[in-house]
Amino acid sequence: MSGRQTPEPALDRQGDCSTGPRDEGAADGIQHSHRMLSFSDALLSIIATVMILPVTHMEITPEQKSDKSVQNLLATRIAVYLMTFLIVTVAWAAHTRLFQIVGKIDDTLALLNLACMMTITFLPFTFSLMVTFPEVPLGIFLFCVCVIAIGAIQALIVVYAFHFPHLLSPQIEGSAHRAPHRRHILGIILQGPTLCLAAAGFSLFFYPASYLLMATVVFLPYISKAAGWCRDRLAGSREPPAHSLEFTFDLHEPLSKERVEAFSDGVYAIVATLLILDICEDNVPDPKEVKAKFGGSLVAALGTSGPQFLAYFGSFVTVGLLWFAHHSLFLHIRKVTRPMGLLNTLSLAFVGGLPLAYQQTSAFEKQSPRELESVRVSCAIIFFASIFQFAIWTTALLQEGETLQPSARFGGREHAFMFAKLALYPCASLLAFASTCILSRFSTAIFHVMQIAVPFAFLLLRLLVRLALAALRALRGLARPGRTQPAPRAMDDARAPLLPAPC
Amino acid sequence: MSGRQTPEPALDRQGDCSTGPRDEGAADGIQHSHRMLSFSDALLSIIATVMILPVTHMEITPEQKSDKSVQNLLATRIAVYLMTFLIVTVAWAAHTRLFQIVGKIDDTLALLNLACMMTITFLPFTFSLMVTFPEVPLGIFLFCVCVIAIGAIQALIVVYAFHFPHLLSPQIEGSAHRAPHRRHILGIILQGPTLCLAAAGFSLFFYPASYLLMATVVFLPYISKAAGWCRDRLAGSREPPAHSLEFTFDLHEPLSKERVEAFSDGVYAIVATLLILDICEDNVPDPKEVKAKFGGSLVAALGTSGPQFLAYFGSFVTVGLLWFAHHSLFLHIRKVTRPMGLLNTLSLAFVGGLPLAYQQTSAFEKQSPRELESVRVSCAIIFFASIFQFAIWTTALLQEGETLQPSARFGGREHAFMFAKLALYPCASLLAFASTCILSRFSTAIFHVMQIAVPFAFLLLRLLVRLALAALRALRGLARPGRTQPAPRAMDDARAPLLPAPC
Repeated sequence: MSGRQTPEPALDRQGDCSTGPRDEGAADGIQHSHRMLSFSDALLSIIATVMILPVTHMEITPEQKSDKSVQNLLATRIAVYLMTFLIVTVAWAAHTRLFQIVGKIDDTLALLNLACMMTITFLPFTFSLMVTFPEVPLGIFLFCVCVIAIGAIQALIVVYAFHFPHLLSPQIEGSAHRAPHRRHILGIILQGPTLCLAAAGFSLFFYPASYLLMATVVFLPYISKAAGWCRDRLAGSREPPAHSLEFTFDLHEPLSKERVEAFSDGVYAIVATLLILDICEDNVPDPKEVKAKFGGSLVAALGTSGPQFLAYFGSFVTVGLLWFAHHSLFLHIRKVTRPMGLLNTLSLAFVGGLPLAYQQTSAFEKQSPRELESVRVSCAIIFFASIFQFAIWTTALLQEGETLQPSARFGGREHAFMFAKLALYPCASLLAFASTCILSRFSTAIFHVMQIAVPFAFLLLRLLVRLALAALRALRGLARPGRTQPAPRAMDDARAPLLPAPC
Repeated sequence: MSGRQTPEPALDRQGDCSTGPRDEGAADGIQHSHRMLSFSDALLSIIATVMILPVTHMEITPEQKSDKSVQNLLATRIAVYLMTFLIVTVAWAAHTRLFQIVGKIDDTLALLNLACMMTITFLPFTFSLMVTFPEVPLGIFLFCVCVIAIGAIQALIVVYAFHFPHLLSPQIEGSAHRAPHRRHILGIILQGPTLCLAAAGFSLFFYPASYLLMATVVFLPYISKAAGWCRDRLAGSREPPAHSLEFTFDLHEPLSKERVEAFSDGVYAIVATLLILDICEDNVPDPKEVKAKFGGSLVAALGTSGPQFLAYFGSFVTVGLLWFAHHSLFLHIRKVTRPMGLLNTLSLAFVGGLPLAYQQTSAFEKQSPRELESVRVSCAIIFFASIFQFAIWTTALLQEGETLQPSARFGGREHAFMFAKLALYPCASLLAFASTCILSRFSTAIFHVMQIAVPFAFLLLRLLVRLALAALRALRGLARPGRTQPAPRAMDDARAPLLPAPC
């Protein structure tokens, strides 16, 4: 990772930890799965987030525009979106577990993985069918077919990998109980598809039941994990084979921190880009219209969609800073336990909802009764996205010994910093929400300006402090310009606690 | 990288190469830039590729539907898209160079980087303005303003990093000639913005000139690199300060392989997802329409858009296999020289064009004269995307000593494999193109079925070989089931050259 900063270390590190193995590996088509996994992470995170689009693009017909129904519509939209986000993240978690067992890949596994990805990319379509035709069971039926196909492919991957054990992770390759391992793993992988088979059956004559089963599929992993966790608490330690399964399927088994970060980055990146997509699609005026309405003046035409641009920048700043908070948070985290993973998923689900907030605050610009509502929706989304980040931090503090870097533990100098960083957005969004309740009329423009102001105010403050430090250093270390760098750093440390919380 | 496969090594590696430094680093807000860089890579790759959307969504009015004009329209569309793709990749290359100099980041740099990203995300909008209003200079003006803003932010980053040298990469932090370094780097960073300043000026009274300057901005890096390279050839070695600049700005300086892979993965991932986006947006029938036309039968309604689904799967398979080829290619590459980087950019630009191919082959389904054309367009796009991958491979072979893994060098056992893998798509697309010229009528359906057939045929063949091997092993190593794995691998090797080229 630190290999990024200069070419040389990068080459060294490739030399010591990938070129070597890859080299002999490549000779018989065995490859390390690193890059395939990050590609899958990118795909899955984008698919999970893209599912907000059929939600944001649902147009509201005039008769629905009465307050209550709009709120209900929003509620259902958000609920359905969260549900499907969870489904894809469950698929992602299964994928992670799977490739903690399958350590290396060859061409066949790479192709099987691509097939799995292709099936997963089809989920959003089944989802939009479900949303558009809630009474027609076809959507849920197709969904179940997809889940079954995914399960089948993953089972194929497991069987294939156990058939060529040199593809397995060293622990399993070395263990004497490979057969029970395989049974256990296949059992876990096929739980979801089995339920979906039942759901597909129900969808043919009684579809509400299949929606129920679908919900079970989503929450099953967490339920079973919780059950296993309680069993552990009651039973204590176990017999060897079961125990050697631990390292893949224990509740306390940390997820691969790298993959959690990659998945989160994908979500943040695609959300930031969905925003610009809306801008490019909706805010490029139509040439004829420009001629007709604005006498050919493009500037005037663009002027009318000024609020959208403001909304765009506001939302991008929010996404950026939420990523920034997530980034600094995971900088201090050493292990990601499953509860933290779940909290991260929930936080990301709300981050993925930000385009909805953006669309709300930009679309309803004109009608002031909507305006308050839309600002409240945005505040709620931002609040939940940030509060779950905060929850990750507190959960990590509970087991700080195993989850946190020493410098960030309770009372550590980084502790206060992180606390403030993560508390900022919950507080800010609550404040904005409160002000919408107090003020009779609250403009979205003000809201977006607030959003944009946050980082620049912070940046300005930081720069001022930097300049002050520079001035001080200039006064002191004129004699030895080359080697005074350690000094300002020390001073920096001294100042650090005095600094405002970095946004 | 290999740390992915099992939790333990991952933790070890974090222990040895990031936790340690991060730990003391985090203490004064210094962080390693690894994750920020991959986030930037994801963002930039998505933005570069998203720019195909305003192109694919330009509707063709009936009077344009005559063959010639459609072809011209397609040509201009593709040209403009390629241009803008190159612009973003130039920004990405500048970003890469920048963070080869700035080794570590703190909060301020992270925020500055986010600001830079936000400005870059605005480029697609200026681009769509340019496409929609080619005669109105506003688009190009806004574009220039963005480029200038980006340059300013990057200059700010450089100044900031040189002001706190512990943020610089060790080479520069250690060197005695930091001032000339800074001058040199700022000079390079500000080249583009300066040209754009002129372009912005021209756009106010003579906009064609500014389009010309824009083109210069895009190709300037490659021109200047080429010039520098020739100068090296003539002048030979240089004086120390200039020479210590080499490691950041030499033509032969390998790009960070990690970042090239990350950027490419982002492009492939978003292209695969843009495909499903079109599916979700366009192919969910309208409830009223279903009632009216199909008597409420959703299945019948979906049946009409069957060709789109076929096209979707065909295109996804193509994207997936192009990624697969890229993946196996970079598995054998040790260093990415700038020419290889340029070829990779060109290949990715055509990969980003695949949604256009998809839209063509699915939209023109009904009209058979268009059909041939659209298939040809797809073939051309696929051909160029794959031929440039092939070119990367041949370029790498020219300097195989420094660029390739030993096993993949000329005559090496992997060499023939790679050659066949990379030759497959150029040949297949040429074949399809030829058949469109020979056959009077060539159905897109056939084309997509061909696309889908490729990997499954290969997969089937591989599985058969695996089964044969398994049968053989079962006959031989019944006695020692636990430890016979090396044997099949060896046999696999023996078989390998007999296998068909892994797609």
